[in-house]
Amino acid sequence: MIELVILGAGNVAKHLYTAFKQAPNIRVRQLYSRNKTDWTRFLGESSTVTVTDDWTSLANADLYLLAVSDAAVAELSRQLPFTGCLVAHTSGNLPLAVGSDRNRRAVFYPLQTFSKDRPLQYSQIPFCLEAESEPDFQLLETLAAALSAPSYRLSSGQRQPLHLAAVFANNFTNHLYHLAAEICQSHQLPFRLLQPLICETAQKIASISPYQAQTGPARRNDRQTLAAHQKQLQDETQRQLYQHLTDSILKTYEIHEL
Amino acid sequence: MIELVILGAGNVAKHLYTAFKQAPNIRVRQLYSRNKTDWTRFLGESSTVTVTDDWTSLANADLYLLAVSDAAVAELSRQLPFTGCLVAHTSGNLPLAVGSDRNRRAVFYPLQTFSKDRPLQYSQIPFCLEAESEPDFQLLETLAAALSAPSYRLSSGQRQPLHLAAVFANNFTNHLYHLAAEICQSHQLPFRLLQPLICETAQKIASISPYQAQTGPARRNDRQTLAAHQKQLQDETQRQLYQHLTDSILKTYEIHEL
Repeated sequence: MIELVILGAGNVAKHLYTAFKQAPNIRVRQLYSRNKTDWTRFLGESSTVTVTDDWTSLANADLYLLAVSDAAVAELSRQLPFTGCLVAHTSGNLPLAVGSDRNRRAVFYPLQTFSKDRPLQYSQIPFCLEAESEPDFQLLETLAAALSAPSYRLSSGQRQPLHLAAVFANNFTNHLYHLAAEICQSHQLPFRLLQPLICETAQKIASISPYQAQTGPARRNDRQTLAAHQKQLQDETQRQLYQHLTDSILKTYEIHEL
Repeated sequence: MIELVILGAGNVAKHLYTAFKQAPNIRVRQLYSRNKTDWTRFLGESSTVTVTDDWTSLANADLYLLAVSDAAVAELSRQLPFTGCLVAHTSGNLPLAVGSDRNRRAVFYPLQTFSKDRPLQYSQIPFCLEAESEPDFQLLETLAAALSAPSYRLSSGQRQPLHLAAVFANNFTNHLYHLAAEICQSHQLPFRLLQPLICETAQKIASISPYQAQTGPARRNDRQTLAAHQKQLQDETQRQLYQHLTDSILKTYEIHEL
């Protein structure tokens, strides 16, 4: 049985708590938040897990999971009132060394987007793991396996570019969906018309590289359509992004000629 | 029984031929291409459908489907050696009126990305239909229904912004996947680590609007991570796109403060 304390009360903390609660051989001993109500409201009255907002009453555990914002990790790790314990943060961008060296430092980074009220399939989430010793690493592996999740050993130097790549593939992509939704909305078109296209675009690259999968007017060097689109775009931000993304595609495929 | 002639031999022409071949009450009578081998190589020896490269021997049909590049539609439609027939193009961007008015003009636009060797689920593809008369529109509806595909009546004025939105949601999104793959590659990281995240990002917006689904450092106004990412990006195109997309997210959520 691995015993956990989860610190934080955001989306990642809540998703991980929900998953670990159902996992075999894992016990979430305690939840910490500066505001206890962040957890008590989420848990409901029937919950038996203890919630604390008091540093000095943190329970003993095999692992303290800092599922808090990047900005809070360093300070939180320094404030922990014990030494020699295993403390992992869940950030893609922060190095292992951001944690206080008074405890055994580790990283337990789930490479996925966590939204409120949206359940996740953990068997599909790669967990990127890092620790200072082999036994600590193995404990993290056991944790990921308890969620049926695949895990990978990544150094901080590898995890940071992976997180950056994830920003392109997830955050920026989602923003393009939003711009597409705006265009639909301003012409009274239902955005759901685009859902099958969006899913096919995402699924296609499991079998074809995105380099090969590229289609569209920029890839075809179809200047007539590119000009027609530029003309349609009234919003300056949309127009500029259209141009920058088009230029980047033309550059990628070394298309210079009209 | 609806009889078709398909003109063109690109991905859309081939996908539609393959789909119609199996559809009930549809007969593809003939395939036209300037180079007959484009089709004959695709069809193989056992095929019984006739292929022609000769304008003057086009078969009679209920519908002539111009599945060719946008640039070729207008000229091809003017060259057709008959009048009064139903002729539909498959372009998202071109208006109905691009076709010659010597024939009955129509649009049969499948809103999907068509790649070679990748089968599609037609029940998931919205077909955007437009015609000059109600009987012609109904024939297009029957065709889409024969593929078990949902169909929508869209004017040229609606279809063009939808196509533009699709460029954001599909072509530009795929390019972001490519940039993410480049970042992975330059750090010896397997791109497939991002596949579950990419699929979840695409599926999530079926239940949450992309506006609500937005996560990441720009959305959180996490300037520390934004600066760390900028520093990591060595490629100038990647760096500029990172900045432009970040600025657009900040603007969307009216985030001004540091």
